[in-house]
Amino acid sequence: MTATPVRFGLFGSGRIGQVHAASIAASPDAELAWIADPFIDGAERLAAQYGGKTTTDPAEVFASGDVDAVLVASPTPTHVDLIRAAVEAGIPVLCEKPIDLDIARVEALRPVVAAAGVPVALGFNRRFDPGFRTARDRVAAGEIGRLEQLTIISRDPSAPPASYVAVSGGIFRDMTIHDFDMARFFLPDIIEVTAFGTTTFDDGAREHGDFDTTTAILKSASGALVTIVNSRHSTTGYDQRIEVYGSEGDLTVANQGTSLVSLSNANGVAAGAPFEASMVTRYTPSYRAELAEFIALVRGEASTSPTFDDGRAALLLADAAQRSATEGVSVAVDLT
Amino acid sequence: MTATPVRFGLFGSGRIGQVHAASIAASPDAELAWIADPFIDGAERLAAQYGGKTTTDPAEVFASGDVDAVLVASPTPTHVDLIRAAVEAGIPVLCEKPIDLDIARVEALRPVVAAAGVPVALGFNRRFDPGFRTARDRVAAGEIGRLEQLTIISRDPSAPPASYVAVSGGIFRDMTIHDFDMARFFLPDIIEVTAFGTTTFDDGAREHGDFDTTTAILKSASGALVTIVNSRHSTTGYDQRIEVYGSEGDLTVANQGTSLVSLSNANGVAAGAPFEASMVTRYTPSYRAELAEFIALVRGEASTSPTFDDGRAALLLADAAQRSATEGVSVAVDLT
Amino acid sequence: MTATPVRFGLFGSGRIGQVHAASIAASPDAELAWIADPFIDGAERLAAQYGGKTTTDPAEVFASGDVDAVLVASPTPTHVDLIRAAVEAGIPVLCEKPIDLDIARVEALRPVVAAAGVPVALGFNRRFDPGFRTARDRVAAGEIGRLEQLTIISRDPSAPPASYVAVSGGIFRDMTIHDFDMARFFLPDIIEVTAFGTTTFDDGAREHGDFDTTTAILKSASGALVTIVNSRHSTTGYDQRIEVYGSEGDLTVANQGTSLVSLSNANGVAAGAPFEASMVTRYTPSYRAELAEFIALVRGEASTSPTFDDGRAALLLADAAQRSATEGVSVAVDLT
Amino acid sequence: MTATPVRFGLFGSGRIGQVHAASIAASPDAELAWIADPFIDGAERLAAQYGGKTTTDPAEVFASGDVDAVLVASPTPTHVDLIRAAVEAGIPVLCEKPIDLDIARVEALRPVVAAAGVPVALGFNRRFDPGFRTARDRVAAGEIGRLEQLTIISRDPSAPPASYVAVSGGIFRDMTIHDFDMARFFLPDIIEVTAFGTTTFDDGAREHGDFDTTTAILKSASGALVTIVNSRHSTTGYDQRIEVYGSEGDLTVANQGTSLVSLSNANGVAAGAPFEASMVTRYTPSYRAELAEFIALVRGEASTSPTFDDGRAALLLADAAQRSATEGVSVAVDLT
Repeated sequence: MTATPVRFGLFGSGRIGQVHAASIAASPDAELAWIADPFIDGAERLAAQYGGKTTTDPAEVFASGDVDAVLVASPTPTHVDLIRAAVEAGIPVLCEKPIDLDIARVEALRPVVAAAGVPVALGFNRRFDPGFRTARDRVAAGEIGRLEQLTIISRDPSAPPASYVAVSGGIFRDMTIHDFDMARFFLPDIIEVTAFGTTTFDDGAREHGDFDTTTAILKSASGALVTIVNSRHSTTGYDQRIEVYGSEGDLTVANQGTSLVSLSNANGVAAGAPFEASMVTRYTPSYRAELAEFIALVRGEASTSPTFDDGRAALLLADAAQRSATEGVSVAVDLT
Repeated sequence: MTATPVRFGLFGSGRIGQVHAASIAASPDAELAWIADPFIDGAERLAAQYGGKTTTDPAEVFASGDVDAVLVASPTPTHVDLIRAAVEAGIPVLCEKPIDLDIARVEALRPVVAAAGVPVALGFNRRFDPGFRTARDRVAAGEIGRLEQLTIISRDPSAPPASYVAVSGGIFRDMTIHDFDMARFFLPDIIEVTAFGTTTFDDGAREHGDFDTTTAILKSASGALVTIVNSRHSTTGYDQRIEVYGSEGDLTVANQGTSLVSLSNANGVAAGAPFEASMVTRYTPSYRAELAEFIALVRGEASTSPTFDDGRAALLLADAAQRSATEGVSVAVDLT
Repeated sequence: MTATPVRFGLFGSGRIGQVHAASIAASPDAELAWIADPFIDGAERLAAQYGGKTTTDPAEVFASGDVDAVLVASPTPTHVDLIRAAVEAGIPVLCEKPIDLDIARVEALRPVVAAAGVPVALGFNRRFDPGFRTARDRVAAGEIGRLEQLTIISRDPSAPPASYVAVSGGIFRDMTIHDFDMARFFLPDIIEVTAFGTTTFDDGAREHGDFDTTTAILKSASGALVTIVNSRHSTTGYDQRIEVYGSEGDLTVANQGTSLVSLSNANGVAAGAPFEASMVTRYTPSYRAELAEFIALVRGEASTSPTFDDGRAALLLADAAQRSATEGVSVAVDLT
Repeated sequence: MTATPVRFGLFGSGRIGQVHAASIAASPDAELAWIADPFIDGAERLAAQYGGKTTTDPAEVFASGDVDAVLVASPTPTHVDLIRAAVEAGIPVLCEKPIDLDIARVEALRPVVAAAGVPVALGFNRRFDPGFRTARDRVAAGEIGRLEQLTIISRDPSAPPASYVAVSGGIFRDMTIHDFDMARFFLPDIIEVTAFGTTTFDDGAREHGDFDTTTAILKSASGALVTIVNSRHSTTGYDQRIEVYGSEGDLTVANQGTSLVSLSNANGVAAGAPFEASMVTRYTPSYRAELAEFIALVRGEASTSPTFDDGRAALLLADAAQRSATEGVSVAVDLT
């Protein structure tokens, strides 16, 4: 608390950039120093709300001498260059997922990051969700014995616009990537991916050769099986559940409701309100905790921030899933 | 199992008589030997389904030498005479609640029953409901420490016909009497009753000066408070719940659902089917267990059947509640 | 948003004062201008965290010309004088419950408040709890037809210190007063109170002639019955539930859990974490909404802030409950 | 009801034979005429309990002229011959799953069954479970729009003995076969199977080259994906759930609890009793309904009994899953 706040440079003022700006503003340990966005209006709107200087040019941020860390929330194709610029400037970086849609660019950047010794964290915010984290900690504490199966249900409230699907890299790299990382949060040593996709309702997905409904099966080195069930829509809100089956018990993470009120009448009992339907409201606490953990990393304290290599591993799994689903084969992966 | 089945004489072939006939038929330890009802058609219908001889005259049953026990499910005004006849004939009797609407007749019968030494059990079937019984056994086992408060929610699916209300003795003697006995199942030593009644929806209740909506508060000698919330209707089915608050924890008995299926959609989540809406389906297991326990009593084995004095105590509480609700005073009771 | 923030003078820097200071700090429409507390250390700690000047003397706040509204979170005996001073100074006031422990002082203040025409709001924050408010709005919208019964379960995590009990005015004036107001939130026209209290576990209550376990029954002019079940302790956390039974359905407000994670194993299924156990975490959103509503009142906008007369009504009900529980009678009340 | 009861010949008096004998005895439309078992003691025990003649020789049953239908609950290797004998004798047959472990024998029998025109039903009792059936009927009624994903969780309470595993044909043909049929209950047109198995806890499975933990993914011609999660053990009881995701909503079938009682205390809230832990108690209603439906078939009435071809389809899916899990490939299936 008494430490000087970490001064952040934020790249990107879109939806996810706004989420991070709010987290920075809410943290007593962080300060929004710069916002860079080629669409300067967005940057200025954030600056008006939370403070900070604005620019269209990321280089100005790095050159300013005013930032202790940067947060990359700009479009995916800019991530690799911004990470490279940050580590070259010796400035710790928290980057949104995915690192890139092209694994080759990620592999090329990997030794640079490793050699620089500058902290690079990946924005897998769900690791910081109180429910998922508690479940994982309780598994780690042995509460359910040996982990045998892990089931991740992750269904978005509604499909994104076709224009977004066009540049998303596909559902596995865009959406399932969170679940691939979640699988590795419980079981880091994934060795095989098999994935299945269909397109049943989303014209955007159909137009761009993407899937809207998928299931992926991962095998871990321990023999445990992971099942990931995804959809681009869920009528009841954001369906985000995990079940972990162990030799001694099961742990379940339920959905986040939006109300404690339920109605019972002649039509049926206990009809509650839909679940949270927005990434922002559902995951606000996780974004805040993610930032706090990254600040610890910046300060050289103990930190559980996901690493660059976690980002690479999730992308390798997504690539494997994409290949599996289109070619109809299981794909072995080597995440080391 | 290998013992000779107990031969039952059943008085009454109405709704509750039919429930008991089915229980007798389902029990390997019981046999329906006689059915007596002035409406001989009802008796004959039951005999056709479950066996047994029929008569319009209860005396014929007692004189037959064919019955080991009788089950009184005839209208309330007949109970006292039938119990008296049974104990005079040395035949154990299981009598439906209430013993009578007039406590004076009950008090007059009491020494007869006590002197006869013939088993007389009262039909408080809910003591044998698996949920309520388990809760009470767990309280008795000390699982929640000292019992501090007991809340009984008991709401019927719908109000009875006005013709029934007319002769029911009022909601406290007719319906709440089950809850008074349930209160004593957990806390036998009730010392004070305060009751409140209103008439908000049932024309039958209004016509006959009865209540359709009531709350009763009982004090036990231990200081524990009992709250009984009653209604003559419940749109979602039979609302039968208990909450027990103790110094170390709470035990809750939930409603019995009618389906494991629930629907979630944009209107809300997890809307299940209504609760059981019939006394018969909701309480079938309790009627069967009640009969088994009475058979044990007939056979001289250990038994937890509610006694004549339990029936008298519940009526004393109902009378006190009636007086409390109409006169606006708390009423001390002495159940000894 | 673009309006000038309302400058607050806060009286009291204890537990509830801290809650309000945090709400003021979190609101873009409010600013903490002054904190007054005879224990200046507490005031200074809050000022260091949230800004504002400090004083030991409330008069200095009123004289400063720096405050647009005051928030009274000081000990109960100071409330009447502070409200009087505020309305005399023409400064709107939001006062914590109860107005006073002595109804005579409240009645004496009443015409002063009425004559002044200065907004006086009472801190019945639970009216702003999202669950309770939604339930009440849905009842008002006719979703369950005519309201027949209302059950309020309100059990604190643990009993307060004996020193607090000594000056609390008793459980009805200190704790149940929230539930009395909640009853009036659904059914303003209460006409009769009957209350029951026992002391089963709390030595502090025993020492000071107070109860730790109570039930209260209210009758409304409409005939609807209200049942309030209270306890000074609840092993599972803060037990705050409401059930509303109507002619067409029931609305239920469930407890606020602290985790979405549950464990199932051979010992049983779905054991979740305890409920919220702190007034602060359980009711944070309600305190924030309460403040927002008061700010609207200060600005002359439409507002649903509970009024001075709501505070008086709740105290009249608490007084009636106290008398009922100690004298064993039902007490008619006239809240007009 | 007034029709003559169907006289049953029962083959097999083991665990599942006992279940069927109880169903026959409980049905007013059925009568247990013969019980055949090489272990005559088992047959005689059932006859003593439910009536019927006994023999060690199935031929005696067919020759007796006393049976209207046969129920095959003997070991799997006997099924094909008994079905053949039944249809040759013109006697309708209800056969337990699987038809055989060898698809070649099933294919050889298929034209015989088709040509005979004698009703042959398969014992996929879960189609008659009230929850699963209701869910399927509501999907068929369009309540959730177009079916997009189906998730079946099916975990047994505990692994069978190694001796059973040895002759079971493997988990897919023995256990998952129920889930394959359930998948087809919702989505008959399955076109591809991919399955995954590991052996993490059961020595019997390890010894016999079987899996104890599996996941299977089915694709339907409609594009819908089915995910089946299986385990040979579940610490909380019989875990039997279904989730159906549709374009307009989701339907969920929950587990069957064993008690309405739950405990909340400082350790957590609402810990209920484990789920049903026995196939018999969990599925009793489905076995009864299965029998009733078969009796309708025997009587030439409308019936939804699963057919011989349903049994063949499930075995084809199980074979495909076995191959997929061992060879690491997706397997296309043609169920026509």
